[in-house]
Amino acid sequence: MPTLDFHPTGRHFLQIPGPSPVPDRILRAMSYPTIDHRGPEFGALGVRVLKGIAQIFQTKHPVIIYPASGTGAWEAALTNVTSPGDHVLMYETGHFASLWQKMATRLGLKTEFLGLPGMEGWRRGVQAHMIEERLKADTQHAIKAVCVVHNETSTGVTSNILAVRRAIDAAKHPALLMVDSISGLASADYRHDEWGVDVTISGSQKGLMLPPGISFNAVSPKAIEASKTAKMPKAFWAWDEIIEMNKGGYWPYTPSTNLLYGLAEACDMLLAPEHGGLPAVFARHQRWGEGVRAAVRAWGLDIQCADPTVYSPVLTGVMMPEGIDADAVRRVIYERFDCSLGTGLGKAKGKMFRIGHLGDCNDLTLMAALSGCEMGLKLSGVKLAASGVAAAMDFFASHPAPQLLQKAA
Amino acid sequence: MPTLDFHPTGRHFLQIPGPSPVPDRILRAMSYPTIDHRGPEFGALGVRVLKGIAQIFQTKHPVIIYPASGTGAWEAALTNVTSPGDHVLMYETGHFASLWQKMATRLGLKTEFLGLPGMEGWRRGVQAHMIEERLKADTQHAIKAVCVVHNETSTGVTSNILAVRRAIDAAKHPALLMVDSISGLASADYRHDEWGVDVTISGSQKGLMLPPGISFNAVSPKAIEASKTAKMPKAFWAWDEIIEMNKGGYWPYTPSTNLLYGLAEACDMLLAPEHGGLPAVFARHQRWGEGVRAAVRAWGLDIQCADPTVYSPVLTGVMMPEGIDADAVRRVIYERFDCSLGTGLGKAKGKMFRIGHLGDCNDLTLMAALSGCEMGLKLSGVKLAASGVAAAMDFFASHPAPQLLQKAA
Amino acid sequence: MPTLDFHPTGRHFLQIPGPSPVPDRILRAMSYPTIDHRGPEFGALGVRVLKGIAQIFQTKHPVIIYPASGTGAWEAALTNVTSPGDHVLMYETGHFASLWQKMATRLGLKTEFLGLPGMEGWRRGVQAHMIEERLKADTQHAIKAVCVVHNETSTGVTSNILAVRRAIDAAKHPALLMVDSISGLASADYRHDEWGVDVTISGSQKGLMLPPGISFNAVSPKAIEASKTAKMPKAFWAWDEIIEMNKGGYWPYTPSTNLLYGLAEACDMLLAPEHGGLPAVFARHQRWGEGVRAAVRAWGLDIQCADPTVYSPVLTGVMMPEGIDADAVRRVIYERFDCSLGTGLGKAKGKMFRIGHLGDCNDLTLMAALSGCEMGLKLSGVKLAASGVAAAMDFFASHPAPQLLQKAA
Amino acid sequence: MPTLDFHPTGRHFLQIPGPSPVPDRILRAMSYPTIDHRGPEFGALGVRVLKGIAQIFQTKHPVIIYPASGTGAWEAALTNVTSPGDHVLMYETGHFASLWQKMATRLGLKTEFLGLPGMEGWRRGVQAHMIEERLKADTQHAIKAVCVVHNETSTGVTSNILAVRRAIDAAKHPALLMVDSISGLASADYRHDEWGVDVTISGSQKGLMLPPGISFNAVSPKAIEASKTAKMPKAFWAWDEIIEMNKGGYWPYTPSTNLLYGLAEACDMLLAPEHGGLPAVFARHQRWGEGVRAAVRAWGLDIQCADPTVYSPVLTGVMMPEGIDADAVRRVIYERFDCSLGTGLGKAKGKMFRIGHLGDCNDLTLMAALSGCEMGLKLSGVKLAASGVAAAMDFFASHPAPQLLQKAA
Repeated sequence: MPTLDFHPTGRHFLQIPGPSPVPDRILRAMSYPTIDHRGPEFGALGVRVLKGIAQIFQTKHPVIIYPASGTGAWEAALTNVTSPGDHVLMYETGHFASLWQKMATRLGLKTEFLGLPGMEGWRRGVQAHMIEERLKADTQHAIKAVCVVHNETSTGVTSNILAVRRAIDAAKHPALLMVDSISGLASADYRHDEWGVDVTISGSQKGLMLPPGISFNAVSPKAIEASKTAKMPKAFWAWDEIIEMNKGGYWPYTPSTNLLYGLAEACDMLLAPEHGGLPAVFARHQRWGEGVRAAVRAWGLDIQCADPTVYSPVLTGVMMPEGIDADAVRRVIYERFDCSLGTGLGKAKGKMFRIGHLGDCNDLTLMAALSGCEMGLKLSGVKLAASGVAAAMDFFASHPAPQLLQKAA
Repeated sequence: MPTLDFHPTGRHFLQIPGPSPVPDRILRAMSYPTIDHRGPEFGALGVRVLKGIAQIFQTKHPVIIYPASGTGAWEAALTNVTSPGDHVLMYETGHFASLWQKMATRLGLKTEFLGLPGMEGWRRGVQAHMIEERLKADTQHAIKAVCVVHNETSTGVTSNILAVRRAIDAAKHPALLMVDSISGLASADYRHDEWGVDVTISGSQKGLMLPPGISFNAVSPKAIEASKTAKMPKAFWAWDEIIEMNKGGYWPYTPSTNLLYGLAEACDMLLAPEHGGLPAVFARHQRWGEGVRAAVRAWGLDIQCADPTVYSPVLTGVMMPEGIDADAVRRVIYERFDCSLGTGLGKAKGKMFRIGHLGDCNDLTLMAALSGCEMGLKLSGVKLAASGVAAAMDFFASHPAPQLLQKAA
Repeated sequence: MPTLDFHPTGRHFLQIPGPSPVPDRILRAMSYPTIDHRGPEFGALGVRVLKGIAQIFQTKHPVIIYPASGTGAWEAALTNVTSPGDHVLMYETGHFASLWQKMATRLGLKTEFLGLPGMEGWRRGVQAHMIEERLKADTQHAIKAVCVVHNETSTGVTSNILAVRRAIDAAKHPALLMVDSISGLASADYRHDEWGVDVTISGSQKGLMLPPGISFNAVSPKAIEASKTAKMPKAFWAWDEIIEMNKGGYWPYTPSTNLLYGLAEACDMLLAPEHGGLPAVFARHQRWGEGVRAAVRAWGLDIQCADPTVYSPVLTGVMMPEGIDADAVRRVIYERFDCSLGTGLGKAKGKMFRIGHLGDCNDLTLMAALSGCEMGLKLSGVKLAASGVAAAMDFFASHPAPQLLQKAA
Repeated sequence: MPTLDFHPTGRHFLQIPGPSPVPDRILRAMSYPTIDHRGPEFGALGVRVLKGIAQIFQTKHPVIIYPASGTGAWEAALTNVTSPGDHVLMYETGHFASLWQKMATRLGLKTEFLGLPGMEGWRRGVQAHMIEERLKADTQHAIKAVCVVHNETSTGVTSNILAVRRAIDAAKHPALLMVDSISGLASADYRHDEWGVDVTISGSQKGLMLPPGISFNAVSPKAIEASKTAKMPKAFWAWDEIIEMNKGGYWPYTPSTNLLYGLAEACDMLLAPEHGGLPAVFARHQRWGEGVRAAVRAWGLDIQCADPTVYSPVLTGVMMPEGIDADAVRRVIYERFDCSLGTGLGKAKGKMFRIGHLGDCNDLTLMAALSGCEMGLKLSGVKLAASGVAAAMDFFASHPAPQLLQKAA
């Protein structure tokens, strides 16, 4: 496979906000021999992963696992609960929110796209009051669903989903709450049941630390009820048959056996009580985010997210000074230092790059990535105020990881 | 992963007609580190797998690779070329043809299901003359597509696709020809272009020897043309954006990176000139099928496929005598001999089991499976006319594999 | 790695009496990242494997693990307890006993080689009474050690080690008892302490199901005592420093980290209470041996081992009729059926082949191998009395594996 | 394998001077199924690795590959060319030179240990003039061999082997030149033939990037001639049988099959013309060494090697200020930052730690390790003059890797 092997030595640093680096432990699990998806071993595996993934979504209701990537799960969410021509209210937090809106439109839904003007909306989270106002105005309850993105992968902004729930409730509006947490789940705190979400969409290649290829719909009883009368054509994505077959740990069609092996392993890793379970996972990502932002601030560069209360624990968008092409900087870092960073997407093309700090990382992985950034920025002619690497070292050294504190206690 | 490890020793014999046993070489390729699906390495990989898979479909036109399992590719084929309420002519060759028909109906198409009566249709291939007659009767050209299954995984019958093409041509009918070759591709000869197929659907977990998780639509220019005006809602499955992005080796959304590594390896294995390329692949499966059928005949049991001209090279359906529950036999073979066989599906439930002879096998793998069957049949009280194992040994010993003949020459 | 990939499809059947087929589970364990052999993780691993391997030797005394293959462990055993010119009594059971005797001679020991005349000694186990007689005659106690092979890999004969112990005791002779159980350990019952063995030599690539590369000396207190005054030059092989360092789980020099990962996994597999532990391991190999011998008898061929009380549970030597070159038969089976069998060694060259039935096998693996043998024998012109494959199927079907019986109970 | 998995996320940074981090590509190669070490596939593999390893030693003469770790290869070198009581001249460059001397003494050789007094000898390379003087004084030619270490793993000093050769020649002395290049081979330039070395010892777990477990003796015709009359008892280590069997790609006893798969892969990686072959390997390590030393100098700490002309490209010894326990610093870095560093050995215990910069590294791997060191030093109370991390970034950014320059040209 020569295309994967052009670097003479050393491991590539994959610091994009997903696909995240996959732990060897998961790659090993994925290499178990493929088994009969109708046999007893598979049924046991199915029950196990369904139970594990529900814990990660923090839900007691069904989670559908699709043998398809995250974009498919967006489509699944929409087609299960809507009918052609339905009105859905979506909120523009960034490029992925825009792509989802584009999909909904293409599927024949009437989409309305709220948001702050210009780049402003891409630098702040969902403004729940705008949703509340819009819903109050919809006295006929024409709006069938409110669609928001939990963690905007294109910007590094994490929205307050509970606030959206409260906005819908304050408006006394029956619309379903649909949330994309593709890049938030298993990195940022996410509570499907407690936050009253009706459909949460997620994927495998972010906090779950799996390769891309499987995706999820966590569904509330209200969403299931809605799906029974929704008229959008659906078959592959239809929840009903899957939920029925899942009772025995099976699927109506062939599931992605080997990615499910990986998912079983990922659940074990993320939920392991001896490592602190989900709270430790969330704390870990928060801490990494703070370390990376310390570096960006020291460089004197702007963080894409303009509201510190919604900084993403998953990724940080780094804005370039005028006259610097962010993709040229990324190319230098990639070619000279074996490190991949995320490109600016849509409106942000060329203006920013994104540093992923999620999944199978540790402090030194991030120090490596930040070193690559600092060298690459300088080589690209960006004037830096101070060493971000030094600032990140100061932060990491003075803030031990929470697990370590527990160990010491 | 205890559920995959309950046998104290030895490798499980996975002799179902898919998922087929995955070669270690492919499992190793799938364990390459996940990379940036927007980076230059990925683009090179994308170009490579798209070129390889087109060779395997024997087409010069686009092949769409979906990050979704085979059932998704069925839906993709239908949604790209039809509009709600369109009339499609489908042919019942077995359980999978029935599932596809059920899906088309669920998606809102008007389906017409041709076929021979009772179990008869499940024991013979597509009767092309029935299609020809029906199309001739459709003088208004209401029928938009003819849908047939190339290799019926539920029965072990391979239909003559070229005959279907000729039937459509003889009827001078403009309907698209859509073929499911999920379990035929890369085991049985299949020629997308030469046979005039408009859309061929396939999956990863059969002749391509990959785990399930990616699937394919090979599309003719006529199909692409039809997709431009088709009105079924589509986004994830839409060919247009994918074909456009594929020019650079990329996808509009996140592809299944690690399964694509496996696909690159599978293409190398199947197309390797030093192993004889596709003709050797097809000859190998034909020979395995003959060996297995020799065993079934010696046992005195019926082969599900009643027409020797369309025996499947991929699997053989073995019919049980009256009073024997095929699934009870399968269970004995599974529990006593670590061997999985395919269950009877739909109408054939309990009446037959299926032996897969595809993918990463060799003569002794099949001898092992046949030994397990012979022991299990006897333990289940089935009276056997003679030793099928002996018959298969006679066949394999007297018919060297074609590659070996080449070596000797 | 093209040399390992010349077969177009399917897994090779490695049915030699070692290296045995390595379970994927162990190959996966061996792919854990290499760690610091002086760090705390390694110490924990060292303690764990030392404890596990002692259980497998059934000893409470030290087991030395060498980062060297089995032949090295032969040399280690000899150099730790002997002085140049020492007299050792060895017993010729086959080719490996002869190689060990050759090594002892080369190292400067005075070796005496007992045994039955001609091929007779290669078809029967150690004649303990001959050892007893010889020791009784050694009234000066010039003989320092008695060296015997537990399971002769070249013939398929397992000697009665307890009888040898009793012979030494009956002769009231102080010689050390040294036993090669390279191919016996973890397949045939072996009890280092209970049988009063002073040094047992073993290796990784047989019953332990690991690749070759590490080897063992299990040592009695009497052997350790002897090592303190023995004068053979030794450093790498010296027990003293290793035993001392092993207390913390470390070695005086760099151990084979990744093979030790495999050993930890092998111990878990072999000792797992839920699979019946060592008794189940021994019963499994006994049963496999009986099945294979049933086939050989049906063929009308002679089993190399002429004494049914000492049939090896690890391998079976199959003697060829006059005029048949066993290696020509092996070549046919290898080239036509992807199956490796053991060659005849030394005196038995060309006269026999050996079928390994050890390690990561199951019934169908052996049925595959026997099918390959039966086809290959016929293709080579050997007249067979009846089908050995049929006989083996009769045996396996009528004798369920003991674990299965337990499950049913 | 819980002991290998106590860190909740991220890959451990193994920055000891061996075992070096093993590339995934090699771990994958090691997971190929074990094959018959007497079969044709193995013979082809054997020929291939013997040819590859000779290129790496830069020799046209035999290289013996032992299924044993590096310490075994030391013993092999000594036992093949010496007789009990022979006089050998060894030179103390550090801990490993001392261990080799201890081994020679234990094997019954009369060892003479040259060197500079106190720690001075551990901070400089071999003083060839001292060897020349000593050999000139040996007018009776009692000294049979001169033994030196090429790259002292305990100190980070690389000796000039050609100078030693010239010293022996200048003294017109017939002694054999024996060199330990266990940690030098495949990282530092090494020329067995051109430098007139008689026996070079090496191992797998350093520049070859394999796990520990196999080791090497490269032998000159003069050494082979000497081995014919040398009287030290030898069997396992004896060159004669191995060299004879190696002609066909085989070994007289079971070789470490799976590590040889890894060796084949390592040879492909190191010799690949598209990556620049050995000259690029050596340049890469030189550059890494310079980057790491830039950091140490910036910190204001002493480099263990006091002579800049013999800085090791493989590792750097970092001396602690008075009152700081180097092992306490290492522990902080290990526990807080998932990074293993080498301990001070022998005389240097507690006074230094060692940073490995060899094998499967890249610039960012080293930046990660240096960040871990800088944070750990500060947390341990070491006063640093300036940021070593900043200095290393300056160096790496301003000195592109040679391969990159070639690409650009």
